[in-house]
Amino acid sequence: MTTIDIPGDSPFGLANLPYGVFSTPGTAPRVGVRVTDWVVDLAQALGDEVFAAPSLNPFMAQGPRRWAEVRERVTELVSGRIPDGAVHPVGGVRMHLPFEVGDFVDFYASEHHAANLGRLFRPGSSPLMPNWRHLPVGYHGRAGTVVVSGTDVRRPCGQLKPPDADAPVFGPSRRLDIEAELGFVVGAGSAPGSPVRCDDFAAHVFGAVLVNDWSARDIQSWEYVPLGPFLGKSFATSVSAWVVPLAALEAARVKTPPQDPEPLPYLRENEPWGLDVELSVRWNGQEVSRPPYREMYWSPAQMLAHMTVNGAHVRTGDLYASGTISGPERDQRGAFIELTWNGREPLEVNGTPRGFLEDGDEVVITATAPAPGGGRIGFGEVRGRVLPALAGERD
Amino acid sequence: MTTIDIPGDSPFGLANLPYGVFSTPGTAPRVGVRVTDWVVDLAQALGDEVFAAPSLNPFMAQGPRRWAEVRERVTELVSGRIPDGAVHPVGGVRMHLPFEVGDFVDFYASEHHAANLGRLFRPGSSPLMPNWRHLPVGYHGRAGTVVVSGTDVRRPCGQLKPPDADAPVFGPSRRLDIEAELGFVVGAGSAPGSPVRCDDFAAHVFGAVLVNDWSARDIQSWEYVPLGPFLGKSFATSVSAWVVPLAALEAARVKTPPQDPEPLPYLRENEPWGLDVELSVRWNGQEVSRPPYREMYWSPAQMLAHMTVNGAHVRTGDLYASGTISGPERDQRGAFIELTWNGREPLEVNGTPRGFLEDGDEVVITATAPAPGGGRIGFGEVRGRVLPALAGERD
Repeated sequence: MTTIDIPGDSPFGLANLPYGVFSTPGTAPRVGVRVTDWVVDLAQALGDEVFAAPSLNPFMAQGPRRWAEVRERVTELVSGRIPDGAVHPVGGVRMHLPFEVGDFVDFYASEHHAANLGRLFRPGSSPLMPNWRHLPVGYHGRAGTVVVSGTDVRRPCGQLKPPDADAPVFGPSRRLDIEAELGFVVGAGSAPGSPVRCDDFAAHVFGAVLVNDWSARDIQSWEYVPLGPFLGKSFATSVSAWVVPLAALEAARVKTPPQDPEPLPYLRENEPWGLDVELSVRWNGQEVSRPPYREMYWSPAQMLAHMTVNGAHVRTGDLYASGTISGPERDQRGAFIELTWNGREPLEVNGTPRGFLEDGDEVVITATAPAPGGGRIGFGEVRGRVLPALAGERD
Repeated sequence: MTTIDIPGDSPFGLANLPYGVFSTPGTAPRVGVRVTDWVVDLAQALGDEVFAAPSLNPFMAQGPRRWAEVRERVTELVSGRIPDGAVHPVGGVRMHLPFEVGDFVDFYASEHHAANLGRLFRPGSSPLMPNWRHLPVGYHGRAGTVVVSGTDVRRPCGQLKPPDADAPVFGPSRRLDIEAELGFVVGAGSAPGSPVRCDDFAAHVFGAVLVNDWSARDIQSWEYVPLGPFLGKSFATSVSAWVVPLAALEAARVKTPPQDPEPLPYLRENEPWGLDVELSVRWNGQEVSRPPYREMYWSPAQMLAHMTVNGAHVRTGDLYASGTISGPERDQRGAFIELTWNGREPLEVNGTPRGFLEDGDEVVITATAPAPGGGRIGFGEVRGRVLPALAGERD
């Protein structure tokens, strides 16, 4: 039997206990929980087959009472003696996509981000669209290309239309960007035809991940009218390997910033679901931004209520993300297009002026949130490196 | 043993042989093939477990050689003597969603439809957006709310913003519409990072279904800027219960209308994949339109090539639809917003002037295509009836 020493100030201590899917050489992917720098094999330690699955979906589908019960059991387990074979160093395991993604929705819930993009793309017009303060604007993204942190991302090719050209050309994106976001994972689905109220958020959402919604701005700007982003986003969306349970975010709950005009009744929340999560974006090792989730205009409970108000249901494994998190300050912006003002105000990255991503660049997003009783919990990082476009596709 | 009498002019004769998923009272859903007015149980008749699954996905994942081999075996089977218990009258079975939907993409490939909507929504501007003739415009829809023909569709509620109002109100959609489309079902997935060439269309796409992409125009028009349609579409998308194999559409292949400007190389097809499929839309029993698929500007092979050119892969069960099929004539328009010019030019339906859908209305879309050697094959219908909005949600 093994015991794990858990310092009170560990970002992966007893206040956190995020779930993921891991494997060791020669074994099948299965569910584990992270404690400090260790991964505990839950199928083995708890003897429960639901954790032998290669995704969190079967466990998540069991619903919120079961999530609470397992969290208690896991807390006891990792506080005591654990069977030797059930504990692996986090550096010695391979992490897999932690859940099978049903539908993927991406919102646009940062006022600062939406206004910055409005100023960049529609200069001279009002930065926010008339609907923006009335509803959480969102759209469906590609579920099949959601990948786990650590997966390399190949620079996409597509149609690019320089402003001074008559026709588009084909080639690798030259304006490859990131979007630092928080993602919410639906555990317990809802019934078709039954909208989810804001106050029922925690009955459906299992936990949160960090998201990097890679974006090819040049592909996007040519294609997106009138039906929205498509190939400029669909090549890859990276998520962190560890799903932080909603229960671990209790101490992070804050009110959203004031919402004016008052939202329609279905968007009003009695319990605040804004979240004081502080992100950090590192570009080739250098921190370039600290996006504050507490600045987001719409809460994830409001996003869920909106997404289902027309009768559409959510399913186990559905993922919805916040959209780029940008605060009011320049060094709080969660996308390079904002940080470098569309490349016109380059950032110094390790001494070199940079606008968008170059081949070989690596981006790592991390985050922390207040833990109950002080200290902070950590999100697993979301890391990705840019591979060059395929040679045959260069223009 | 049973034999099925197959008249040469049956729309569900030997030239068609569509696949679906059916059950009889007290039995589990499984794969069947439709022959005239009979459903043949393939798990039982062929003794192959892949057909005992409750979806076509395991069979579709086996790839195009296997699809061809099974089509030959099924042709022999239904032409001869079939075990008694394997044959059910089509009226005595329940049909299920024929495949598990991975990602759902909806295109916008009818020039007449796109131009009509441009005239309606952006009067005074050019009806087509600058990108429209350069790429098949498309976006991701909600996979979790794709339902099989015969499923009732509840009128959605949502935010509506009358043009003369300062702020949106909440209530049931008053401009509920249909979109008559053809959908393409991916059988064999592609590898991540490897675009699918137009000429490889038939190596990946298993077959076609009819699609009714129900649309709440008032919800859509308020929400869709700048990220595209979301709740105006996500409440329901109906598909026909029978998947017509691509092999059954060989005689329907035609060139697309002339494409000007010439598409970029990745969108050029050597083999034509336009399809001479003729749809029929009936509103409460009265035929109101005959949308011609042969008029579509972009072919489904071009849609697949475009969708994957950025490296995004397709998976077994992915569904992509053409977008509304509208021809140049008024009675060839595939959406009521076009047929009634946004309600301003009502249609006489059974003697009553009608603009959009009312509660209790039923829409049935059918289609036929030329069969090899003459005659026509049929698509299974896609049928849906409108239920009233939930009482608590009326405004």
